[in-house]
Amino acid sequence: MVSLSSALVVERNCNINTKMADETTIVHYLFKRLHQLGIRSVHGVPGDYNLVALDSLADAGLDWVGNCNELNAGYAADGYARIKGISALITTFGVGELSALAAVAGSYSERVPVIHIVGTPSTLSQKKGALLHHTLGNGDFSVFANMSRFISQVLVNLNDPNIAAREIDRALQACYVSSHPVYIALPTDMVLRKISAKGLETPIDLSLHPNDPETEGDVIANITKMIYNANNAVVLVDACAIRHRVIDEVHDFIDKSQLPAFATPMSKGDIDETNPRFGGVYIGSVSRPDVKEAVESADLIFSIGALKSDFNSGGFTYHTSTKRTIELHSDYTKIGHATYPNINMKSVLQRLLSSLDFHKIRHTESAKANPPALKNEEAEKSNSNEITHSWFWPHIGNWLQEKDVVITETGTSNFGIIETRFPKGVTAISQVLWGSIGYSVGACQGAALAIKESDPSRRVILFVGDGSFQLTGNEVSTMIRHGLKPIIVIINNDGYTIERMIHGEDAGYNDIQLWEHTKVLETFGAKEGEYANYVVKTRKDVDDLFKKGNEFSKADKIQLVELFMPKLDAPRALKLTGKMSEKLNAKMEETVI
Amino acid sequence: MVSLSSALVVERNCNINTKMADETTIVHYLFKRLHQLGIRSVHGVPGDYNLVALDSLADAGLDWVGNCNELNAGYAADGYARIKGISALITTFGVGELSALAAVAGSYSERVPVIHIVGTPSTLSQKKGALLHHTLGNGDFSVFANMSRFISQVLVNLNDPNIAAREIDRALQACYVSSHPVYIALPTDMVLRKISAKGLETPIDLSLHPNDPETEGDVIANITKMIYNANNAVVLVDACAIRHRVIDEVHDFIDKSQLPAFATPMSKGDIDETNPRFGGVYIGSVSRPDVKEAVESADLIFSIGALKSDFNSGGFTYHTSTKRTIELHSDYTKIGHATYPNINMKSVLQRLLSSLDFHKIRHTESAKANPPALKNEEAEKSNSNEITHSWFWPHIGNWLQEKDVVITETGTSNFGIIETRFPKGVTAISQVLWGSIGYSVGACQGAALAIKESDPSRRVILFVGDGSFQLTGNEVSTMIRHGLKPIIVIINNDGYTIERMIHGEDAGYNDIQLWEHTKVLETFGAKEGEYANYVVKTRKDVDDLFKKGNEFSKADKIQLVELFMPKLDAPRALKLTGKMSEKLNAKMEETVI
Repeated sequence: MVSLSSALVVERNCNINTKMADETTIVHYLFKRLHQLGIRSVHGVPGDYNLVALDSLADAGLDWVGNCNELNAGYAADGYARIKGISALITTFGVGELSALAAVAGSYSERVPVIHIVGTPSTLSQKKGALLHHTLGNGDFSVFANMSRFISQVLVNLNDPNIAAREIDRALQACYVSSHPVYIALPTDMVLRKISAKGLETPIDLSLHPNDPETEGDVIANITKMIYNANNAVVLVDACAIRHRVIDEVHDFIDKSQLPAFATPMSKGDIDETNPRFGGVYIGSVSRPDVKEAVESADLIFSIGALKSDFNSGGFTYHTSTKRTIELHSDYTKIGHATYPNINMKSVLQRLLSSLDFHKIRHTESAKANPPALKNEEAEKSNSNEITHSWFWPHIGNWLQEKDVVITETGTSNFGIIETRFPKGVTAISQVLWGSIGYSVGACQGAALAIKESDPSRRVILFVGDGSFQLTGNEVSTMIRHGLKPIIVIINNDGYTIERMIHGEDAGYNDIQLWEHTKVLETFGAKEGEYANYVVKTRKDVDDLFKKGNEFSKADKIQLVELFMPKLDAPRALKLTGKMSEKLNAKMEETVI
Repeated sequence: MVSLSSALVVERNCNINTKMADETTIVHYLFKRLHQLGIRSVHGVPGDYNLVALDSLADAGLDWVGNCNELNAGYAADGYARIKGISALITTFGVGELSALAAVAGSYSERVPVIHIVGTPSTLSQKKGALLHHTLGNGDFSVFANMSRFISQVLVNLNDPNIAAREIDRALQACYVSSHPVYIALPTDMVLRKISAKGLETPIDLSLHPNDPETEGDVIANITKMIYNANNAVVLVDACAIRHRVIDEVHDFIDKSQLPAFATPMSKGDIDETNPRFGGVYIGSVSRPDVKEAVESADLIFSIGALKSDFNSGGFTYHTSTKRTIELHSDYTKIGHATYPNINMKSVLQRLLSSLDFHKIRHTESAKANPPALKNEEAEKSNSNEITHSWFWPHIGNWLQEKDVVITETGTSNFGIIETRFPKGVTAISQVLWGSIGYSVGACQGAALAIKESDPSRRVILFVGDGSFQLTGNEVSTMIRHGLKPIIVIINNDGYTIERMIHGEDAGYNDIQLWEHTKVLETFGAKEGEYANYVVKTRKDVDDLFKKGNEFSKADKIQLVELFMPKLDAPRALKLTGKMSEKLNAKMEETVI
């Protein structure tokens, strides 16, 4: 997402210089706007209420993905947006849009800007309340949009050509600025209606609402004072820093202030981990002891884009003082106990960068940076040849390359990756808050396509458990169809290990049907010579695979690695978090009898 | 569904005679009630907010299915309910329940009673608005239930042990009586809370609200007069006859009155097609000409459980007179232009059966019964060896056996099956109204499991297109896991043919990635000797397969048949309906400029 703003400028200039026709269709206006936002591929599944719209994709310079199902398409759109900054998803009324809801809700929860376009029955059919297929049979055509209302920043219905262009722009602006999904209903009879093309000459206004200058002045003064007074401040960077596009400012701030900077599970990868000031991943009580000590002994926490969800905060175990915390958010700022509504962090950070005298900032030895190790010494020393989580995740830090895209599934991988030290420029994709199993496979398709469009030299690597893979594994088919070449690592540990850590260690409901993973690529249509399978059962196998060099690490084909791990082994952070979750689930209010 | 009421009586008596403990847990009460309703297997996917609940399934005599994902689980629950009369689905908060919504909405639309039980965070976490995983991160725990409200007859939250039993009974009663899904939220801390077990001794009241005797008297008198006065009345049986459990009464009525009886696409299979009075499938203008003539020339249409959706009515082309139609519904009766609210059909039919003098009913030659042929003579005569729809669907009528369960996918199969004449006792499952592609594979898993529990001698046969199969094909894994043995016929016609018939005949968006279908069973874990694959490309291949006899037709293994059909061939009814749909989609109101 980092470079979207500059990409947009170029894109806009290109488009502005092209002379537009006076008239266009509603669908072409919409699709051209998507193109102007940097979107090149649109995810989704065809359905009879969107078919005519799909005819217009090519003219607007957009490719159609054609996913296996809408849930996968939604996950893929989310993954694509996390690389390109924004994305679009097209489904059909009722059956299609509802199938995608869990994915769109995930984008809402995790703050990823996805434009959900739904092909709906004609305005005439809707007005008549016709008993059409894909309806509830009760003549109510508003039901499905109303379900999406809860997970959409803005909901527009393009049922009036007179305001369609304005409504499209309003929705796209809201999507980008809020970093939340929006819902656009496009009735079949409106698709090709003519409207003025004039709006396309002016880029959509994507600027943030400016902060009130007087309030912002107060905020800057107070923050400045606290930073100058601190002896060992730390920077804590969380998910909303990248979601609300202040990560460049954050990097500047770390470089200039030389304060130690910490990530969270949700922002893992967003701070350059080769920066000597990178301090590791803070997760409350679940943190490594040295990280916990460094953050919790700081006399000032400069928190940027915090999203303190259970799994992102070690089950709500931050031992930090509100009084000694400055929180910057997209829509408010908090200094100690005082909240300043509508003061967004981008402007605050930019003003701090230009106004602070960074020489006045003090550091102490105790707050020195201390990133994750490249090896777990204890695990390395063990005689076992089993691939354990404590060995594996630090170990792969050596194999990762600059600018890799690493996608991890909700499960052991999401917790394991915390222990991996990333080379420079690695992008990590996961769903720590929404945590929908199966997400990562769809997201991998979307991310890999975005990478193919933007910088095919980058590798895309997916880590997914065998249980989660069963939800959305069919999307590997779409990867093959589009010639995408991720490395898919399926962790075969005999079922839902994350759930075993929470409850039911040996329960039958945490078992799964065993799949022949090495037959998956072939079954989904990969052709001889265009794919490779590997089975990896020991530490030596892992190292042998890594030693293959480019034959594996930079192969020009899609690759699937089935990696066996013990059924009841899990990353340290998951073991701790799992038990906390179980307790929290069972906890009753004391007042209830 | 036919025999549920008697099954329930037995089940209830068994349970009543078992002495109950005085106390039980909320979850055990709920699960025991499911068992009393005849449910033996519960579909769903485990998730941390439902794990503790799943521990209690076995004690209540329930098996856990463990589907590949929630959408599939929802489809499977729908299929199971269509065989057993009712079913249950368990998902987890947010991620799980939303993934199932398109399936539950389908059950709502098609009127299938599915009990959706959602494991939710503890009441304490909800009260605090905790920032838990699987939430939108905004502290709002009511969002997802509110989304389900639109597609649930009743929504209960078991957050109060004092009324939990009553709420459970209220939801289950509503589910059964309305034949619509209900939503039950079960917070983690409530699962094992103790409540009185006393309620379990009394069966849930599943009786219909009695009709107002005076209004019903009027209705009976008017119907009687119209029937006696008619010269060539016909009976038109639609989906709600089976959904609202009056199919036994309907068969009685046909036998006693000897009136010709017609089905619709949605009720196909519900009338015994070997009954000499069965007249075929009426679909307005899309009907076979002789069927159209027979229905539309009748001077009285006795319509039972009509659901006149677009695909069920030939695109709204009934040429019948309201004045000469009697409509019986689950919640009202309509005689000519007069509506009688709250007069349900079950009681009306039972009173007519006992009060009518059936000798007074007249028939004419023109209304003679005329079921679908066992062969399409024209197609049979053609020299082509290609498997065309016009040849295939009538042809398989010879191969089907009594009491087969035939599941057809939204697509060519749903329209093709109209041309197949069923042996006695065949159950057909499809989604003509909701029409969600991929439904049939999940439904096949659920139906096959229900058959395994109730009468394993019945065969389960699925017809699904290659495009639709890609949405939910992973559910074949669950079939294998549970030792289910359906015959899965995948029609390989190179993409979404139903959509090509509507729009975009050669459009890229109607293409799909080609799968190696014959590798599917093995990939999903079927073991050597426990499965078989067949590839069928010509009419001779089809007949050779049928000639194998029990080796194929009654094999004790799961079987997959890949059947090739021409890309642009489609059943007659689909060709007509597709073009109607395209026109309807494009049609604008004349008043709009």
